[in-house]
Amino acid sequence: MPNPTAAMLVIGDEILSGRTRDANMHHLAGQLTSVGIDLKEVRVVSDDRSAIISAVQALSSAYSHVFTSGGIGPTHDDITADCIAAAFDTPIDVRDDARAVLQVHYDRSGTDLNAARLRMARIPDGAALIDNPVSAAPGFTLGNVHVMAGVPSIFTAMVASVLPTLTGGDPLISRTLRIERGEGDIAGPLGELASAHPELSFGSYPFQKDGRYGSNIVIRGTDAAALEAALSALSAAFPSA
Amino acid sequence: MPNPTAAMLVIGDEILSGRTRDANMHHLAGQLTSVGIDLKEVRVVSDDRSAIISAVQALSSAYSHVFTSGGIGPTHDDITADCIAAAFDTPIDVRDDARAVLQVHYDRSGTDLNAARLRMARIPDGAALIDNPVSAAPGFTLGNVHVMAGVPSIFTAMVASVLPTLTGGDPLISRTLRIERGEGDIAGPLGELASAHPELSFGSYPFQKDGRYGSNIVIRGTDAAALEAALSALSAAFPSA
Repeated sequence: MPNPTAAMLVIGDEILSGRTRDANMHHLAGQLTSVGIDLKEVRVVSDDRSAIISAVQALSSAYSHVFTSGGIGPTHDDITADCIAAAFDTPIDVRDDARAVLQVHYDRSGTDLNAARLRMARIPDGAALIDNPVSAAPGFTLGNVHVMAGVPSIFTAMVASVLPTLTGGDPLISRTLRIERGEGDIAGPLGELASAHPELSFGSYPFQKDGRYGSNIVIRGTDAAALEAALSALSAAFPSA
Repeated sequence: MPNPTAAMLVIGDEILSGRTRDANMHHLAGQLTSVGIDLKEVRVVSDDRSAIISAVQALSSAYSHVFTSGGIGPTHDDITADCIAAAFDTPIDVRDDARAVLQVHYDRSGTDLNAARLRMARIPDGAALIDNPVSAAPGFTLGNVHVMAGVPSIFTAMVASVLPTLTGGDPLISRTLRIERGEGDIAGPLGELASAHPELSFGSYPFQKDGRYGSNIVIRGTDAAALEAALSALSAAFPSA
């Protein structure tokens, strides 16, 4: 059975303006790979209602899962929850279960659960809450879309909350061979090996260090035996590696 | 006149598997902002022919400029140039001007310009070469799509080569006000200010430090006077900031 597929949608003007360097994509990519879900596409869009809605609809119909990051805080530019509801044509309002989570959290610190903070309890009908052990305000899953915060520590915690609830396929394994030859010398034998092993993927990631050229060849797949066979063949082709 | 718009297309399995952390998006975002081109969307796709072609077609018809990174090296998984040609239904082959650039480069180091390296001279008909002062193999511009390498040092050099050839709009300026209050307290006054200044954008980027909550409020726009007026109003609303 092929692995489930996934896309990520990063929401936020701050990434597109270059003010903030996104860290969540790299984290999610590694996590999904480790549980056997294939991340196939990432999109970054601005805090714009129609851009978010179209991206959610396109990605949720094309992939098994969609993971979003950003735009679920208390300020006026946090419009993700409402856009997800609109994308699925589902009503959204402050929900009692989410409000209760926030109430407990803010009572503890003696902070007023004012109208702005209460926006974080706006959850679409039928969505399941995603636990946020860092700052309480929950994420949610609606259909195949998992909606999470953009702050990296909270995003990471929410990914840890939601991943065990999903069914992964076979974990993707990878082996790397460092070859100290120019990519132009490696390309021929590598291409032949890739043709002989359609069940594996072969990537070449060149480097230049101390004036010497080389490349890390990464072989990926779910079949450990095929992977080892390909690695042996490649090592044999470049005995100095 | 509104600023030109742009999208970026990052091509590479290594980003989606989590093996490599993309650095080019953050660099390009900052460079485009500084010259007044609005980066509206980023997509990351795998080394898959149909995924690359559809993304190029969608983005090039929606935005003024498209910048791609990755997939223009000598190995079999470097299929970007051929996909760009296919997206524009344009012939592609080894081109004499690109071959000459490579020949000079490899002659200098006494390296053979073999068939694999010659793949890097495959340039679509009608494309303009983008100078690569780092490792010679050129990028190219076809239509409104600027095709560049994924290795960050080369990507950066190619961006520096191509940006001066594009017409930017008014540079986007930004001012930041650090407010040591929870976002929930800031949200009300900030929302009112955003409504009063539709020509500006307001972002709130919360932080927690030494047990204290706060947020950096970033105001962006092209009208310096409006920006200063909004900043003054916000400072007045939070006198302790």
